[in-house]
Amino acid sequence: MNIEKSGRAAALEEEVRAFVATHVYPAEAVFHQQLAAASTRWSIPPVMEELKLKARAAGLWNLFLPEHEKGAGLTNLEYAALCEIMGASPIAPEAFNCSAPDTGNMEVLARYGTKAQQDRWLTPLLAGEIRSCFAMTEPEVASSDATNISCTIRREGDEYVIDGRKWWTSGASDPRCKIAIVMGKTDPTGPKYLAQSMVLVPMDTKGVEVVRSLQVFGYDDAPHGHAEVVFRAVRVPVENVLLGEGRGFEIAQGRLGPGRIHHCMRLIGLAERALGLMCRRAEERIAFGKPLAEQGALRHDIARSRIEIDQARLLTLDAAHAMDTRGNKEAKKRIAMIKVVAPSMALGVIDRAIQVHGGAGVSQDFPLAYAWASARTLRLADGPDEVHLESIAKQELAEQRRSARS
Amino acid sequence: MNIEKSGRAAALEEEVRAFVATHVYPAEAVFHQQLAAASTRWSIPPVMEELKLKARAAGLWNLFLPEHEKGAGLTNLEYAALCEIMGASPIAPEAFNCSAPDTGNMEVLARYGTKAQQDRWLTPLLAGEIRSCFAMTEPEVASSDATNISCTIRREGDEYVIDGRKWWTSGASDPRCKIAIVMGKTDPTGPKYLAQSMVLVPMDTKGVEVVRSLQVFGYDDAPHGHAEVVFRAVRVPVENVLLGEGRGFEIAQGRLGPGRIHHCMRLIGLAERALGLMCRRAEERIAFGKPLAEQGALRHDIARSRIEIDQARLLTLDAAHAMDTRGNKEAKKRIAMIKVVAPSMALGVIDRAIQVHGGAGVSQDFPLAYAWASARTLRLADGPDEVHLESIAKQELAEQRRSARS
Amino acid sequence: MNIEKSGRAAALEEEVRAFVATHVYPAEAVFHQQLAAASTRWSIPPVMEELKLKARAAGLWNLFLPEHEKGAGLTNLEYAALCEIMGASPIAPEAFNCSAPDTGNMEVLARYGTKAQQDRWLTPLLAGEIRSCFAMTEPEVASSDATNISCTIRREGDEYVIDGRKWWTSGASDPRCKIAIVMGKTDPTGPKYLAQSMVLVPMDTKGVEVVRSLQVFGYDDAPHGHAEVVFRAVRVPVENVLLGEGRGFEIAQGRLGPGRIHHCMRLIGLAERALGLMCRRAEERIAFGKPLAEQGALRHDIARSRIEIDQARLLTLDAAHAMDTRGNKEAKKRIAMIKVVAPSMALGVIDRAIQVHGGAGVSQDFPLAYAWASARTLRLADGPDEVHLESIAKQELAEQRRSARS
Amino acid sequence: MNIEKSGRAAALEEEVRAFVATHVYPAEAVFHQQLAAASTRWSIPPVMEELKLKARAAGLWNLFLPEHEKGAGLTNLEYAALCEIMGASPIAPEAFNCSAPDTGNMEVLARYGTKAQQDRWLTPLLAGEIRSCFAMTEPEVASSDATNISCTIRREGDEYVIDGRKWWTSGASDPRCKIAIVMGKTDPTGPKYLAQSMVLVPMDTKGVEVVRSLQVFGYDDAPHGHAEVVFRAVRVPVENVLLGEGRGFEIAQGRLGPGRIHHCMRLIGLAERALGLMCRRAEERIAFGKPLAEQGALRHDIARSRIEIDQARLLTLDAAHAMDTRGNKEAKKRIAMIKVVAPSMALGVIDRAIQVHGGAGVSQDFPLAYAWASARTLRLADGPDEVHLESIAKQELAEQRRSARS
Repeated sequence: MNIEKSGRAAALEEEVRAFVATHVYPAEAVFHQQLAAASTRWSIPPVMEELKLKARAAGLWNLFLPEHEKGAGLTNLEYAALCEIMGASPIAPEAFNCSAPDTGNMEVLARYGTKAQQDRWLTPLLAGEIRSCFAMTEPEVASSDATNISCTIRREGDEYVIDGRKWWTSGASDPRCKIAIVMGKTDPTGPKYLAQSMVLVPMDTKGVEVVRSLQVFGYDDAPHGHAEVVFRAVRVPVENVLLGEGRGFEIAQGRLGPGRIHHCMRLIGLAERALGLMCRRAEERIAFGKPLAEQGALRHDIARSRIEIDQARLLTLDAAHAMDTRGNKEAKKRIAMIKVVAPSMALGVIDRAIQVHGGAGVSQDFPLAYAWASARTLRLADGPDEVHLESIAKQELAEQRRSARS
Repeated sequence: MNIEKSGRAAALEEEVRAFVATHVYPAEAVFHQQLAAASTRWSIPPVMEELKLKARAAGLWNLFLPEHEKGAGLTNLEYAALCEIMGASPIAPEAFNCSAPDTGNMEVLARYGTKAQQDRWLTPLLAGEIRSCFAMTEPEVASSDATNISCTIRREGDEYVIDGRKWWTSGASDPRCKIAIVMGKTDPTGPKYLAQSMVLVPMDTKGVEVVRSLQVFGYDDAPHGHAEVVFRAVRVPVENVLLGEGRGFEIAQGRLGPGRIHHCMRLIGLAERALGLMCRRAEERIAFGKPLAEQGALRHDIARSRIEIDQARLLTLDAAHAMDTRGNKEAKKRIAMIKVVAPSMALGVIDRAIQVHGGAGVSQDFPLAYAWASARTLRLADGPDEVHLESIAKQELAEQRRSARS
Repeated sequence: MNIEKSGRAAALEEEVRAFVATHVYPAEAVFHQQLAAASTRWSIPPVMEELKLKARAAGLWNLFLPEHEKGAGLTNLEYAALCEIMGASPIAPEAFNCSAPDTGNMEVLARYGTKAQQDRWLTPLLAGEIRSCFAMTEPEVASSDATNISCTIRREGDEYVIDGRKWWTSGASDPRCKIAIVMGKTDPTGPKYLAQSMVLVPMDTKGVEVVRSLQVFGYDDAPHGHAEVVFRAVRVPVENVLLGEGRGFEIAQGRLGPGRIHHCMRLIGLAERALGLMCRRAEERIAFGKPLAEQGALRHDIARSRIEIDQARLLTLDAAHAMDTRGNKEAKKRIAMIKVVAPSMALGVIDRAIQVHGGAGVSQDFPLAYAWASARTLRLADGPDEVHLESIAKQELAEQRRSARS
Repeated sequence: MNIEKSGRAAALEEEVRAFVATHVYPAEAVFHQQLAAASTRWSIPPVMEELKLKARAAGLWNLFLPEHEKGAGLTNLEYAALCEIMGASPIAPEAFNCSAPDTGNMEVLARYGTKAQQDRWLTPLLAGEIRSCFAMTEPEVASSDATNISCTIRREGDEYVIDGRKWWTSGASDPRCKIAIVMGKTDPTGPKYLAQSMVLVPMDTKGVEVVRSLQVFGYDDAPHGHAEVVFRAVRVPVENVLLGEGRGFEIAQGRLGPGRIHHCMRLIGLAERALGLMCRRAEERIAFGKPLAEQGALRHDIARSRIEIDQARLLTLDAAHAMDTRGNKEAKKRIAMIKVVAPSMALGVIDRAIQVHGGAGVSQDFPLAYAWASARTLRLADGPDEVHLESIAKQELAEQRRSARS
């Protein structure tokens, strides 16, 4: 990509890349060994806290945060390049305190939180001392249509009373997770886009129960995990509302743009890693008298993977740059486009890499099967492909009408 | 499909279908609960042995076996239809004593085993008392090219001494698994297709070690599992060779044809189940004011799934019929074709079904994610797509040359 | 395909195949030379009439006609195999008096025509002395929805007065075309499926004007052609109605099933020819030191083409057999399925063949570019893919509901 | 795209866009009418010369030429944006004296031509008074491998004697075509990449014969056309060699980079036009009670088209920028990538647009069928997809090896 970067951004890129190569990749196996050896899968492998200390010491910390005294002050475009590098390892983002859903939650607190909310929750989150979760999706309804959300947040005196069942509340099972942002209806019969609010719910509040862990293609994603959480008559003070009653949608909208760019860039990093593994394997394995890398169809697969990765990267960086220079609203169509493109691209590249690895590709011996499973969820999370395609079509038809009239 | 079936085959089809609906589907959840409650994942849930008793009592037993006094005597075409029905549930084939790799092993023993080999191993296998495994694939080499196999079977007096490392030896971790068929080189420098032999190795032989369980995506497939097995100076009597030294390839060839038809038909059954789930979900879930089933793009997905399933079924039945009427060799190209078609078809249909299910689709709440992972391995197992495509192309080019000359 | 054929059908297959190889293929170049040398492109190359004489003399004539004293009496399944052979050459079907739209028109006349209508039009059509056209599609409306048809057929005394503009009236420019079957509204305000009628309109009736010839890509398809035809106050006697007023839909439905099978089988024949050409070219052309046929990706293309052709053929024969044994209505879903599958399959196979031929592939030197253009129209003619997918989805959802309830 | 453009480039973009809208689109129908009315298809419709006068008067002339006193001095990136706009109409590039193959020929003459060569040929070409052709591809060999070229250029005293048969010599049939650049072997037994030379051959030289016009899917592309040209003992003075004997490959390499960018950007313009037509048609046509634009599957098609166009544009602009800033060699992989991406993207988008237009889409009533046919040739011209994929794979594998070592 040809857009000029600031010297600082370019330097950070090199530092993050070196850190991942030197510290993170070697820690992956350790992480899994420590987790396997622990008494419960919901405990934090010590290597993770060591990585965090190192990253923080190196100044590679909270890089995602754009507009806060504690943030790195990078543009979306600049941070996107770092996201790609971090995305190549499932344990890298947390090492830099840049992992979802905390990044989104910290941004929301930084942007919309009161001083008291920030002191209580943002400060320890930025310090990497606690973690957080985001409780939005529900099992009983098609959450692709956010107006379906049925959790209720009822005001009773100075308190909100929350009742609902959420799932895919990622990170809720992490023992360090102390705070949830919960989305629900404060005004169920009100105007559609003003019906919802977001409130802060400490995880140790009475009535909050993590009922089970959801698998993703057999993976439990421990110790982070994807929880089903029940809220039964959970009471929090009204001060815990974010930004104000009825502004849940507004916050969700602001949160989603950067989050999608991060997801997409991480997927590009994942795809790059898969392509690297694919090329290496293809050169090492011999079948029918020659390396796999000399088979024509496989070479086409390599070429197509390179093309698809580069196209997805350019589109995502273009969306990031549009956010930086024209704002979230102008970038909306582009963000919907990358959200459709990046997961499918990554799935295709990773799948080809799996195929070249034979049985090893679907096993725990390579990061490919897990990468595929992760990427697959992103055709669903943050809106399924179908919702984004519909949104792109709507905007395109409107623009074409305008252009035909002019 | 329009080919006439015998009355008996049609009756069996109805009986198997009813058995699966009545007994197997309700047992799926029980199976997983019992497994989760067991002290080890390598123990057999009691419900499985109950299902086996019921199926045997109902005469729905060893249906796969074509040409043996104890076999059902069905043609490949007739058995294929039963395979489809069994394929819809991961636990169904075993209930009928029709699960891989035992079916292939039993066929090999029935066709090529000596009386002594049959008495010792085939009889308890047919009775469902023990299970077996097939040790062919190796981690160190591209097993898609079978001449790469490096396990050695060295004759020393009246014994063979076996040294090698195998993996994807499915079922080796099952506590009931008592016998392995091992493929290796008895004549490493001999002619390529005469270098290999198959020998029977009791699992309790000294030097046989199941070193670990391989995952498929995040699934361990317990209690069946996919094992890595090391053979260290394992000694068996020379009587344990199958058919004779140097005839490993020959046996493998004969084994693979029916096995591939079974795999493909089971995949078709799996895809049918996914399509059924997809339709149901699409009619139940409401988004943006209407059931998902009224969305045009989803309807196209349903239609394409129906088309792809029916095309795969016709091709597979056509291959089965060719085997029945023209023999394995004549059916070779057709079998390569179905081996390419069926897994990709199933993956596509299941993936669409997952998408309609949202997050639930990738989780343990529906059989879809597991089905996808299973189907994915079949683009690799029994020869990766690439090997079959190459084989089809070779035959096609040869046929076209012949036809151009005539 | 494994369904038993009558001896007569098998014999016809051999005869038609031999006739095409011996007489038709060599005539293709002659046909184009004679057409190019003629004073107008709307004249009949003499070689065509010679082919017809030969085919008729050989008893290979009107093979499509199932249930008439003059018909060959073949089942749909049996005739389908002949259609495939004829489909390989654009000039073959007419040589056997088996070309669209005459086949459909002759069937309609044979099934629904009065004695007088048959004497006047069916007899010379069956003799190959005249040709006919079918005027249904209109330029001003989306004809995929047949209720959109706006041509009016107004009764005035003993006459119908027809006003409308039709296009894609194939064959109307052929100098031998003497009769049109015109679809229009006799009861514009009546119930949707009773509003339309079909009437016979001699091409020399006053007010009938062929206004221009439509191209398919750059081809005019002369001397058959695709005409835009205007009907201005055209008067025909009321005896010219087919089957009765308001029965246009009913006739159209009956006509479409067999016609779609013929189209699909011809596409399969076309795809087979393309694959044959592709294999030959791949073996002859040398690039980078070896024949193209040794390039792995191209070999995969050959294999995939073989798979797709065979799958499409099995599905189409299955649909034909369903029509034979269960009737048009039962076969409806299958026919929609083949109508989606066959054109796309053919387009894919032909496109790969074009690619292997390089520049020659898109030119007049090989039949590939023309074959592609013809196949492309069949994703639109007789209902676009979208209409058929919708129809399959509707039936599938209904069947799944029924099966879930049972 | 976010790269800053010079004010002049931005202004030119607006001017070219306005010129195309105001003058070129309305001239399209006129062009075809004048051609149809002419006595021969190889005559120039007067409207073209009028357009050229207007464009030249408006200063929109020779915009492609980068580094010459008469050139517009635009970077590849800047000119690429203009190419997109021109690409939307098949007659636009010539109006601006920016059409292939003249642009490439003019660049070659400007960069490598002697003063005498420039005076004689470049000057009238830049003035739009004559046209030129490029004779490289040959019918008898796979020209994807340029070492296959068999035309001989034998030195005899002060002359070269040229013997060979070329085809796809686009523009050779244009009555204004006065000069050909011919590629052939001056040293057939010499080192592979030094065997070829390019010589200037005036079209009126004795022995040059345009033997026929090649069709592209039925289109003759008159009056430009694609000619088969025979060179029989054609003699030109040795001064007519370009750059020197044995430097044909070198010139071809330099020529291809920018030419591919132009082709790709024009394809993007073509795809944009198709998408615009598709949206308009979808909103206007009613089927089954609602506009086509309300059908979900079609909306997905619109969204996917937008995504694919934007991805292709970003990749092409990125390649253009790489050429500007890092040179042709560094940009080589990127250029191979766009050459694979852009034609397939355009074919996909145009095909969907055709489908929405029904029968009209394949006819002469819309520019879609012709656009498709043009785009299809670009999966073959300037190297078929397969050659570029191979080249990308080779570079990718080399880069991965380097990166693994570092």
